[in-house]
Amino acid sequence: MLDTIRALVKKTDSKILMVVLDGVGGLPLELGGETELATATTPNLDALAKQAQLGQVELVAAGITPGSGPGHLALFGYDPFRYVVGRGALSAVGIGVKLGYGDVAVRGNFATLGAGRVIDDRRAGRPSDEKNAETVGRLKAAISELDGVKVEIYTESEHRFVVVFRNPGSPLGANLSDVDPQDTGVQPLVAEAHDEASKKTAELVNAFVARAEATLRDEPQVNGVLFRGYSDVPHFPSFGDTYGLRAACIASYPMYKGLASLVGMDVLEVEGVDDALEGKVAALRKDWDNYDFFYFHVKKTDSTGEDGNFHEKVHKIELFDELLPQLLELGPDVIAIVGDHSTPSKMQSHSWHPVPLLIHSQYARKDAAERYTEEEAQKGTLGLRRGTDVMPLLLANALKLQKYGA
Amino acid sequence: MLDTIRALVKKTDSKILMVVLDGVGGLPLELGGETELATATTPNLDALAKQAQLGQVELVAAGITPGSGPGHLALFGYDPFRYVVGRGALSAVGIGVKLGYGDVAVRGNFATLGAGRVIDDRRAGRPSDEKNAETVGRLKAAISELDGVKVEIYTESEHRFVVVFRNPGSPLGANLSDVDPQDTGVQPLVAEAHDEASKKTAELVNAFVARAEATLRDEPQVNGVLFRGYSDVPHFPSFGDTYGLRAACIASYPMYKGLASLVGMDVLEVEGVDDALEGKVAALRKDWDNYDFFYFHVKKTDSTGEDGNFHEKVHKIELFDELLPQLLELGPDVIAIVGDHSTPSKMQSHSWHPVPLLIHSQYARKDAAERYTEEEAQKGTLGLRRGTDVMPLLLANALKLQKYGA
Repeated sequence: MLDTIRALVKKTDSKILMVVLDGVGGLPLELGGETELATATTPNLDALAKQAQLGQVELVAAGITPGSGPGHLALFGYDPFRYVVGRGALSAVGIGVKLGYGDVAVRGNFATLGAGRVIDDRRAGRPSDEKNAETVGRLKAAISELDGVKVEIYTESEHRFVVVFRNPGSPLGANLSDVDPQDTGVQPLVAEAHDEASKKTAELVNAFVARAEATLRDEPQVNGVLFRGYSDVPHFPSFGDTYGLRAACIASYPMYKGLASLVGMDVLEVEGVDDALEGKVAALRKDWDNYDFFYFHVKKTDSTGEDGNFHEKVHKIELFDELLPQLLELGPDVIAIVGDHSTPSKMQSHSWHPVPLLIHSQYARKDAAERYTEEEAQKGTLGLRRGTDVMPLLLANALKLQKYGA
Repeated sequence: MLDTIRALVKKTDSKILMVVLDGVGGLPLELGGETELATATTPNLDALAKQAQLGQVELVAAGITPGSGPGHLALFGYDPFRYVVGRGALSAVGIGVKLGYGDVAVRGNFATLGAGRVIDDRRAGRPSDEKNAETVGRLKAAISELDGVKVEIYTESEHRFVVVFRNPGSPLGANLSDVDPQDTGVQPLVAEAHDEASKKTAELVNAFVARAEATLRDEPQVNGVLFRGYSDVPHFPSFGDTYGLRAACIASYPMYKGLASLVGMDVLEVEGVDDALEGKVAALRKDWDNYDFFYFHVKKTDSTGEDGNFHEKVHKIELFDELLPQLLELGPDVIAIVGDHSTPSKMQSHSWHPVPLLIHSQYARKDAAERYTEEEAQKGTLGLRRGTDVMPLLLANALKLQKYGA
């Protein structure tokens, strides 16, 4: 499909703004109740929805809960079954680490371990970025090499860090099981290799876990590490070449910048801390004339869902709503509001539920959907579709696709 | 999928009538307004819709604007990515020209060229069929052969004509770029070969353009030619064999007759000029007992959209509505109303928007869709689906498909 689209693409001056509200889809706390989106007061989104077409997007496939990687890749038009990128590679690229052939990047979480190495908190109480950096510093001092393999450790944010194993003489495999059991009350798992090339990597990972716990044993909270998402280096067709777009990423969290940069988008500088919404708008405004596609990422709709904080997620949605007029003021020819997956507060995790999709352009049909909510989206004329449908629809609405066949 | 269907097909006496309202899907002129279909007064369609199941059809894929070829092939159940046919071959076959191996058929438009060969009108003001025939006569006299290759020129209608290059000794390729820039205010393009076999064809096309302009240089309006859609001869599985149907085409425009004949339908004689709606109904009535599948094509819903004439498109929809009772009187077991693509008057071109699908049979569930419009179709139980889903649904509703598996 990417090849078909590439053959039909024409360059125009029209501008596309794709807003990804991370994990925006939700659930009611009680059956029959309202979701976070439906609970939020969103006058600006409502007004836009009345003029736009809505639908539902199942990012990857029916019943499949997308990780952030597959969710975003699907939105960018890359079949998430074909184009696979590990979370480690994403995080590494996102903080500016260059990965080479045979290197393996691993995404780590700091965790709190109690008696008997049982996991009390998979995110170590979400430490501050300062605490994270300090802890990474102690690990770096203790683990610069394991069994002759170079080990690099990078701070990310809160509980997140990245480890890169580099063994240029003998490339490492990335096909091994997670240390993170994705559960509390149990011990971290032992990583096991799924193929010959990953045996060495599994040994390295398990040795790292042991060494880290020894190093951090005096810490009450940030005293364990969990790994999931091992990745070697992926090679994807360029987003810009495929779609004939000058594409920019506006995001503040490393993983999203990493993903955008893996598909070849320019990653714009964003000022501010955390989600930095105002900084993102400033970045968008500053480079508005230099690009014709913007991927604009909002993170906190997801993290509040992951925390199980329904009312805070509602609030983050309302904060985005307040920001929306500043985006519309720039006059994008096409604006899309979508999520990369659902993160219902009720589940405190990503989920398989579709996310609402809103597309606004001059070429919209009227539909019965009056708000950007899960329930209203079902009334929209865009129907229920896969994530990889989004980019072709945006290009079409921006009049960037020629007719297929005579 | 075609093979699966073929294996399940059983022959019965039930009759299917597939009405294709060309380009029927539309857009409101202003956001939030009504489409052509929703604006039209269509009591007969409305009554049928209340008793039928509705849905939306995305003919080819999300965001893809179908040409008439892919749009129709999808409706006939042929995957439009796998079964590709050029417009030239369609037009040639449609006017009864037999194509052989190594021949190339090209679809031409008469155009109006201004000073500096700049295109003023890509359709030369839509000349009358008489003017078309007269102009083709002049070209025939001037160009019967180019560089040793036989050149045949056929009148089609209005601004459309077909050229066939025949070079039996050395087969011609059909992989070359268009002369038609699909824009005004610019010069015609120079055709370029995309492979070795098409180099000769590109030379022939460019020589034809030059010779035609020289021949027509005294004409104020019909003084240039544009080419797009080159085709060698495609080979498709037979529609009748695949579906176990005696299938007939009722259409008046060459391209649609050509397409139907390429998949092996009988093309019935239609009396009358232009869309000849009454002639089509007469043809349907005359041969009602001799076939069990009828493809009934209505063209003007598309041409009025292409002309950007919203109100005229509304009127053409209403004309079809007046005709509908005569179709229903014949008592088809299954009647489908669908389009091969959308042609919003607002865009004056084909578009990617889904078209409404209506299926009426004894085996319909009640749904909330009350009219054959884009917005109502979204409420229908048939959902949003691909063009290739239509034939299996019609066969099923006509009880012509056996159970799959035991």
